[in-house]
Amino acid sequence: MTKKEFSMQCPLPVRDYPRVLLAHGGGGKLMHQMIEKIFASSFQNEILKKRHDSAILSLPSSKIAMTTDSYVVRPLFFPGGDIGSMSVYGTVNDLAMAGARPKYLSAGFILEEGLEMETLWKVVQSMADAAKECGIELVTGDTKVVDKGKGDGIFINTTGIGVFEHSQAIEPQSIRTGDKIILNGDLGRHGIAVMIAREGLSLESQIESDSASLADLVMKLLDLKVEIHCLRDLTRGGLSSALNELAETRGVQIRVEEKSIPVREDVHGACEILGLDPLYVANEGRFLVFVKAGDADKVLKVIKSHPLGEAASVIGEVTKEKDPRVTLVNQVGTSRILDMLSGEQLPRIC
Amino acid sequence: MTKKEFSMQCPLPVRDYPRVLLAHGGGGKLMHQMIEKIFASSFQNEILKKRHDSAILSLPSSKIAMTTDSYVVRPLFFPGGDIGSMSVYGTVNDLAMAGARPKYLSAGFILEEGLEMETLWKVVQSMADAAKECGIELVTGDTKVVDKGKGDGIFINTTGIGVFEHSQAIEPQSIRTGDKIILNGDLGRHGIAVMIAREGLSLESQIESDSASLADLVMKLLDLKVEIHCLRDLTRGGLSSALNELAETRGVQIRVEEKSIPVREDVHGACEILGLDPLYVANEGRFLVFVKAGDADKVLKVIKSHPLGEAASVIGEVTKEKDPRVTLVNQVGTSRILDMLSGEQLPRIC
Repeated sequence: MTKKEFSMQCPLPVRDYPRVLLAHGGGGKLMHQMIEKIFASSFQNEILKKRHDSAILSLPSSKIAMTTDSYVVRPLFFPGGDIGSMSVYGTVNDLAMAGARPKYLSAGFILEEGLEMETLWKVVQSMADAAKECGIELVTGDTKVVDKGKGDGIFINTTGIGVFEHSQAIEPQSIRTGDKIILNGDLGRHGIAVMIAREGLSLESQIESDSASLADLVMKLLDLKVEIHCLRDLTRGGLSSALNELAETRGVQIRVEEKSIPVREDVHGACEILGLDPLYVANEGRFLVFVKAGDADKVLKVIKSHPLGEAASVIGEVTKEKDPRVTLVNQVGTSRILDMLSGEQLPRIC
Repeated sequence: MTKKEFSMQCPLPVRDYPRVLLAHGGGGKLMHQMIEKIFASSFQNEILKKRHDSAILSLPSSKIAMTTDSYVVRPLFFPGGDIGSMSVYGTVNDLAMAGARPKYLSAGFILEEGLEMETLWKVVQSMADAAKECGIELVTGDTKVVDKGKGDGIFINTTGIGVFEHSQAIEPQSIRTGDKIILNGDLGRHGIAVMIAREGLSLESQIESDSASLADLVMKLLDLKVEIHCLRDLTRGGLSSALNELAETRGVQIRVEEKSIPVREDVHGACEILGLDPLYVANEGRFLVFVKAGDADKVLKVIKSHPLGEAASVIGEVTKEKDPRVTLVNQVGTSRILDMLSGEQLPRIC
């Protein structure tokens, strides 16, 4: 079900241990065998080789970004991605959103007793491939096993460290009235792809998750040396939550135009069937750029020339400094408040 | 059941939301309310206040240690500790074992739908107290909620960053033949305390976990500026796994004397009832110091003068550079190989 093919065989003798046992988390020989054969062989580097409780890192800068995320997506594999690559991209993206270059990653696995060893191997291979693609090194890890029925296959926590190569403060507090807001592409594909896979629905066209690393694109934007004020990826709660969080944190009003927000036809259709609003659906490869109006064209041009930004557009702007709120102007020009989701529309989407 | 008293009331309206809902992990209003009322109010600091995807940290040094651990202990509260304080101490200890001063922490929560909000609040309070005690700041976090029956109350991942204030390489590779091995206290209490709580056993005396932060003691040892070669805490797999891992990684032989290894009478008794060997039982406040023989007395003296080292002793030494193995000399002078545990004796102990 994953888009990647794993040609390498799982190096643990699957005949002896086809499934994860509680003992694989017990600190004894079985755990060490699993760590060596599955994890260490996939994430080889000089730091992991030390086999120390902590990774010792010499950073190129003492100003760093740190971020953490746990991944509990269900199913583990879905069109366009899987929990392994997501657990790398998601954390890499959070670092990139702070304007930091992703550098090091930790990984904490919580495995459910009975998980197929082959499944773990595939997830770990996908993580390793994603880490390589992002130029980030996995330097320390941990594995726990919980009894059958007390977990759900695999949960992964990754924590990332990134370094700053510039002195811009890219954060909600830097947002200014007049800033243009750029979105790098169409909305809703990740959430919908996962829901379709989970529910076993079949649609005419296959919708693939947009899960991807945004770091390369963000580094190119930073190279422009223009006034980028804030970056934010559109994960849980989608575009509407991200806009509301930022409006609230910075205390500003934001106006966005529905007609500038790209949503694919098949995603629209699936949303209607599932009773979802694409503005609230989670994405894993979409982000907003808040940029000084005069620099917006320059930034948009660079985004559109990148594979992850072909459908980019300016979707709105920051209008006022008081009474924080987000207004959506719809296709016919009527405007309404775009509120934050109250409850839950898509559980376990990341 | 925990040793701490929580006088503060849970600030979330428990009448409205007595239990965690899937929606508390959905990225909407409920999640933000929980984050503000439970997490942000407990871990207040300038960095968290920014409400950014990443924490931005200015470190006093660019040489750092990074470590990660997930905590899945069952039950959540046990005599002498709980999952909250453990999730701080455990990660702080891993940083200290590298000789780093613990500085920043991330926390990733995986909550099970239906968890009592009051329980979450108590765990978070315990984490906040422990972090304060250790002088470490929790600077970034994440919360996910999984459906009922797909988790087990609370799982916590913490990832820690520590900084180096010296240039000693405290790591397995620094171990030398002739090094003395010092243990800071009696073995087995954590594992036994958790097992007794989990199984609902009642013994004459109460056995409390040894769960504690070792950072203060380690910083005092580093201040001595003597040749400390390696530090290792005795968690999963206990003393025997730690010694075997180090013998293997460094390629040396280690000999330890059973009579020098303190185990409390009641722990011995409980181990016999439960069919466990205290040398394999997990601890959460015990560690080994590998130190140049000539410096051992000085180090032992400092450890013994610390509340966490009153029962400390030299338990053995590094004898040879080849054929890695660990030998245990028993009370009557006979020696045997002390092997690593093959399977699992105590699931979900940390």
